[in-house]
Amino acid sequence: MSNRLNVGVIGVGRMGRLYAANLAQRVPNARLVAVADQKAGLAESFAKEYGVPKFYENHRDLLSDPDVEAVAVITSTSTHKDVVIDAAKAGKAVFCEKPISLSLEDANRILQVVEETGAFLQMGFQRRFDAAYMGARQKVEEGIIGTPVVFTSISRDPYRPPLEFCDPKVSGGLIADMGAHDFDVARMYMGDVKSVHAIGGVLAYPEIKEVGDIDNALINLVFENGGLGAVQLSRNAVFGYDIRGELWGTKGSLQIGYFRQTPILIMTEEGITHDVVPYFIQRFESAYLTQIQDFVDKVLKSEKPSITGADAVAAMRISLAANASFEQNRTVEI
Amino acid sequence: MSNRLNVGVIGVGRMGRLYAANLAQRVPNARLVAVADQKAGLAESFAKEYGVPKFYENHRDLLSDPDVEAVAVITSTSTHKDVVIDAAKAGKAVFCEKPISLSLEDANRILQVVEETGAFLQMGFQRRFDAAYMGARQKVEEGIIGTPVVFTSISRDPYRPPLEFCDPKVSGGLIADMGAHDFDVARMYMGDVKSVHAIGGVLAYPEIKEVGDIDNALINLVFENGGLGAVQLSRNAVFGYDIRGELWGTKGSLQIGYFRQTPILIMTEEGITHDVVPYFIQRFESAYLTQIQDFVDKVLKSEKPSITGADAVAAMRISLAANASFEQNRTVEI
Amino acid sequence: MSNRLNVGVIGVGRMGRLYAANLAQRVPNARLVAVADQKAGLAESFAKEYGVPKFYENHRDLLSDPDVEAVAVITSTSTHKDVVIDAAKAGKAVFCEKPISLSLEDANRILQVVEETGAFLQMGFQRRFDAAYMGARQKVEEGIIGTPVVFTSISRDPYRPPLEFCDPKVSGGLIADMGAHDFDVARMYMGDVKSVHAIGGVLAYPEIKEVGDIDNALINLVFENGGLGAVQLSRNAVFGYDIRGELWGTKGSLQIGYFRQTPILIMTEEGITHDVVPYFIQRFESAYLTQIQDFVDKVLKSEKPSITGADAVAAMRISLAANASFEQNRTVEI
Amino acid sequence: MSNRLNVGVIGVGRMGRLYAANLAQRVPNARLVAVADQKAGLAESFAKEYGVPKFYENHRDLLSDPDVEAVAVITSTSTHKDVVIDAAKAGKAVFCEKPISLSLEDANRILQVVEETGAFLQMGFQRRFDAAYMGARQKVEEGIIGTPVVFTSISRDPYRPPLEFCDPKVSGGLIADMGAHDFDVARMYMGDVKSVHAIGGVLAYPEIKEVGDIDNALINLVFENGGLGAVQLSRNAVFGYDIRGELWGTKGSLQIGYFRQTPILIMTEEGITHDVVPYFIQRFESAYLTQIQDFVDKVLKSEKPSITGADAVAAMRISLAANASFEQNRTVEI
Repeated sequence: MSNRLNVGVIGVGRMGRLYAANLAQRVPNARLVAVADQKAGLAESFAKEYGVPKFYENHRDLLSDPDVEAVAVITSTSTHKDVVIDAAKAGKAVFCEKPISLSLEDANRILQVVEETGAFLQMGFQRRFDAAYMGARQKVEEGIIGTPVVFTSISRDPYRPPLEFCDPKVSGGLIADMGAHDFDVARMYMGDVKSVHAIGGVLAYPEIKEVGDIDNALINLVFENGGLGAVQLSRNAVFGYDIRGELWGTKGSLQIGYFRQTPILIMTEEGITHDVVPYFIQRFESAYLTQIQDFVDKVLKSEKPSITGADAVAAMRISLAANASFEQNRTVEI
Repeated sequence: MSNRLNVGVIGVGRMGRLYAANLAQRVPNARLVAVADQKAGLAESFAKEYGVPKFYENHRDLLSDPDVEAVAVITSTSTHKDVVIDAAKAGKAVFCEKPISLSLEDANRILQVVEETGAFLQMGFQRRFDAAYMGARQKVEEGIIGTPVVFTSISRDPYRPPLEFCDPKVSGGLIADMGAHDFDVARMYMGDVKSVHAIGGVLAYPEIKEVGDIDNALINLVFENGGLGAVQLSRNAVFGYDIRGELWGTKGSLQIGYFRQTPILIMTEEGITHDVVPYFIQRFESAYLTQIQDFVDKVLKSEKPSITGADAVAAMRISLAANASFEQNRTVEI
Repeated sequence: MSNRLNVGVIGVGRMGRLYAANLAQRVPNARLVAVADQKAGLAESFAKEYGVPKFYENHRDLLSDPDVEAVAVITSTSTHKDVVIDAAKAGKAVFCEKPISLSLEDANRILQVVEETGAFLQMGFQRRFDAAYMGARQKVEEGIIGTPVVFTSISRDPYRPPLEFCDPKVSGGLIADMGAHDFDVARMYMGDVKSVHAIGGVLAYPEIKEVGDIDNALINLVFENGGLGAVQLSRNAVFGYDIRGELWGTKGSLQIGYFRQTPILIMTEEGITHDVVPYFIQRFESAYLTQIQDFVDKVLKSEKPSITGADAVAAMRISLAANASFEQNRTVEI
Repeated sequence: MSNRLNVGVIGVGRMGRLYAANLAQRVPNARLVAVADQKAGLAESFAKEYGVPKFYENHRDLLSDPDVEAVAVITSTSTHKDVVIDAAKAGKAVFCEKPISLSLEDANRILQVVEETGAFLQMGFQRRFDAAYMGARQKVEEGIIGTPVVFTSISRDPYRPPLEFCDPKVSGGLIADMGAHDFDVARMYMGDVKSVHAIGGVLAYPEIKEVGDIDNALINLVFENGGLGAVQLSRNAVFGYDIRGELWGTKGSLQIGYFRQTPILIMTEEGITHDVVPYFIQRFESAYLTQIQDFVDKVLKSEKPSITGADAVAAMRISLAANASFEQNRTVEI
């Protein structure tokens, strides 16, 4: 393969724009050659703004373009199965934003096609490429905290998403949509999960009940190796975006994450105040870039994907078990 | 009652010495008039060191001393029932260090006698008198975070206690001994607990298995009002003593606690380092003083106890349910 | 000498009350036997509140009391010369709150009498007994930062004192009154000062001009050993009490001090906020106790004073040079 | 002018590479069309690595290229005068990295030509484009701290540069080379400087004496408006790169800057440790990008330069006065 990868982006809504802009301007060994979006005019306007040569409404048109060597699939989760399978069959290297799908059946079907076609599939879990989470992984590998035995992970949004997005049928709901990231890094640090217990409720936004979701959940994990985990999910960190983790080992501990965006302390009669990272775009700006850069590098070097479809399925299994645990108020084995 | 309270301390081992020294030197409106300890010579040597007029081996001798108006019971938990009941029957105001007893039966017997005798009984949960936890309570009452809906509480020891103390038959074990504090402040902020789910394991000190205890536990709580709680207990915070909490409300959040003991940052080629509060004596030095001062004040003013026997029993019920949940791997209702 | 020291306190105004209360209740090997204050009734009311056996209006009456073995002189600075000399001549061990006097002549006269009488004189500079400043000294002695070469020291008040106190004729003014502490710890870490340069102004409180003082000053120091120092003084840290320092060595650096009083972070839509230590009484509560405890210990053990009159004079010389430098806009050698 | 600017970079050594790489890959409305470097082969190898169409050894060849609309001058300071003047005369818009020159004569000559030719000249002081310093400026403009009256600024390098670079004849020395940034932001916040007093010494690296420079300096400033400033410069922040500032106003204060690079706390028996920003490339990575983006935007929009040559001369005057003050041990008016 050449030393520059021709990439197409399928889906240029909010997250897709971010990926496409990174590929257009900030990934030196990528060339953004095409974008597609089923929403009329969206791909075209993006293409004009960023100077992308080609644009399509139908993802199949993009996939049949021989200039396109690889695609990033940033469409809504419910379409992942069709688009990823089409891309795999078209012989493209595929990057797919998490979660892999809304059902285990869809996910397994994707994995099956990926195996049959031998397609390259790398999943998007940008937290693995964040300096904090990567750095913690390195510290663990250096043995600084001994054997990690407990991992706690916090994901809290500054406000609730639009109600239609809260709908579990669209997004998977709080536990699957937000928790996917926590379950994925939990596996990265601690290995596979054996059993799950979840509690939750509608505590801050009564209207969420209408769509059948919750706004807070606490999920305890037992790992296969006997280690323990706790995941805290919330939609009401009204002050900002709260993404943190703690790793507890036999010889030490790591605290992961931070609150402050601007390194300024304001000191007035009200006390000492600083601002907070507002949301995930700001918190993970670098991680998203590093992640898609990693995808391009892996494809160009013919190396294995950093995060596989099997990783995505493993995270999904935890989500599904946590949802079942919450609904049935019991421990669920995986 | 006069403006100064004559107090006797029963039990002058590690914690008892702390209470007795506070009463002797740092509580202006208390007069430490007697100490008792069943260990030969211990009460006498303390009395000589601190100038306490009287000392006894048998707590009943102290209780029959008419000079003694109130007693602080700081003996091992297994003796609480007998000593507190004797003190209540002797007409003394009683302060009793947590936990109230090792069994619900003993605890209920104590409460029964307290009710029959009309004795004043205040329980010791010093965390309620710590500036951080008190301050958080005040912020909640001021409405700064709206309605609190999630409380998470961390208690981590820097090393495991002696094995004999880990023995659940002596101390109640990790969940009852350490968790009692977390369960108590959880109730202070969030009200009564409806159900509990606990996971745990022997992850850092294999020898703890010999006495039948664990060294790490994660406990999720559902409160009567629908709120959620998470308690994290550990014996392997090898860097120091880790006592923290978070309160999440509909309008904001509070972070409670701190790590640093000495306000010095050391900046060398190894990075930026600071020390950590080593253990509970240092972390809660002021809280223990404030707590026993509060007991003396309440008795002198004939006010109600700040923390009742019923509070202690409520915390114990959560501990017992958490232990049952862990052993049976299921949700336990309270 | 016995194992308990009989102490009298001369001056029970704001600071004197603090010292006397510590001696009455919190210094186990001291006995507060007498208090004196020239303000009618003040000593008497304090004595009744704290159960002190004797009280006087004239400090000479206290000094002629044979029960009094040692005195703490906490009167206004302008009276230090007479009271300390009287106490030294009366054969009492003397603790004297800083600054030693308003003029070098008075200070030298005190030192002369102390030498002639062989009296024990320990000066009060409580910052030396603060955990942060003591801890930093220990880290330096352990060699952790190599050779200290630069020391910067910050003292900022949350508001201006009453105008009559700002008057340099009463308090010595900003540089002498506040800076004395910084100059003293500067000498503790870095040794004697060779030259001084000061700039300053009335920048926050125009009315301070009326009494001839300033509200902000920046003072650079060159030490005898070639090291450098910077002292920052201000009356307008409106958010709280700002006492910090930095020690820069050839192998590392130390940051000394802290802002937060209550270990609570408040997280709302306004950002993340914490409170601040309000003023010196709160910031140095422990240091004042440790300092007077140290005085009692040193007298009882017949050891040398921890901070001598010569130390106080050395700090004063820096203040006077800094004042001269500011007024004449030039470097002043000491 | 078109909506994309054709830029050439003169000097692709360490800093020049950074600017050229940003222009090649991360400034969307710039096109890097040529690079030049007098060191044989350097421009060519950079051009090949980054796909730059043209490369030169002599900057005059680049300047005579009609495709080049604007140039960034990132050569060694001693060549700034010739290159900037050539570029101005060639009708190019010019970005010039600080400091403008080593002598006031050279700087004034540059300004004269810029005025005569009407050339666009924007100076590089990247700290003005750092989120922390920009944010503080905004807070001041919002009135949050009232009137700023004191500014303190810290610049500390983690190690000494190569001796040849320390040589004041090459770099201007510690005060001119490092202090330029502090003097520039001081002017941004507080306005022009009236007088200066500097102390300094060779305290950490004795070998620096050989080239006639110092490794530590403390510089006090009096501003025209009566405000005060303190600048602290050092080469021995052995733990990392220490860039901070404080702004003190009549209603509050701002703390600017941070130490930690990776948001991980490592907690072991040695205490709690975090890493430190290693050096300026990491600390100001975003600021360098924002700055050159700003230059491109300003040229394309035909707006005035954000930082003028006069700004650079004003900063240089403070450096020269501080050097004179240090050498002559006296206050120097500007």
